[in-house]
Amino acid sequence: MANLKTFLESCTDLGLVRLICTNGGAVLEVRTVIDKLYYAELPKGKYANMHTEDFEFHLNLDRIKTVKFEEGEAKRGNFTTYAIRLLNAQEEADLSIFLQWGKPGEYAPGQIAHWTKLRDEYGAVWHPAEV
Amino acid sequence: MANLKTFLESCTDLGLVRLICTNGGAVLEVRTVIDKLYYAELPKGKYANMHTEDFEFHLNLDRIKTVKFEEGEAKRGNFTTYAIRLLNAQEEADLSIFLQWGKPGEYAPGQIAHWTKLRDEYGAVWHPAEV
Repeated sequence: MANLKTFLESCTDLGLVRLICTNGGAVLEVRTVIDKLYYAELPKGKYANMHTEDFEFHLNLDRIKTVKFEEGEAKRGNFTTYAIRLLNAQEEADLSIFLQWGKPGEYAPGQIAHWTKLRDEYGAVWHPAEV
Repeated sequence: MANLKTFLESCTDLGLVRLICTNGGAVLEVRTVIDKLYYAELPKGKYANMHTEDFEFHLNLDRIKTVKFEEGEAKRGNFTTYAIRLLNAQEEADLSIFLQWGKPGEYAPGQIAHWTKLRDEYGAVWHPAEV
């Protein structure tokens, strides 16, 4: 059964993405390539982590019960967005991963193909095994 | 009565800070100077926003009921941390703002002084007026 570690590592090939973390009050969005993840086991759960000069990212893998691939419509501009939602037990997105374009709607070569490949491989909605 | 717009704008003088947004599952932390905020009125509330090449930040000002200044101890290393917690009605931090050091514990000149000045001016715990 597929797990989140393997999945997140295969997200490197999505190229530039936008990570979004929100709690309903604040929203932080970071542009990055998902790369060089490292892992830690904490009392609260097993974490995937990433660290760059400008930002840090931590995700409690144990909380993620569902992964959902979503195509959407850009709020500004007439083009498609490609997201991956990492949902907790309440079906709320703890983390969203969007393909990031250069100019609006202009994705780099291979980005959409890799997103589609992952969706076809894992399923549009899937439930990760424990890591 | 003091409000969050004025307060956030006076946070520019804190210099380099670390913005932290968490929902219990994911954590995103960004190093930045709080600068060039702009505002928007959305159905969900009045938002303060910031936009750079690498990240975006949005905060629903209407959700923040309490602002708390906190001195703490660094998890790694023997030095003091200086935080500002923006708490919602449930007393959860929608956003945390930490003074960011260069090398661990080495703050830039004026950072701690400005944090202390803001704390003395606004109070260690204060409740913002509606904006």
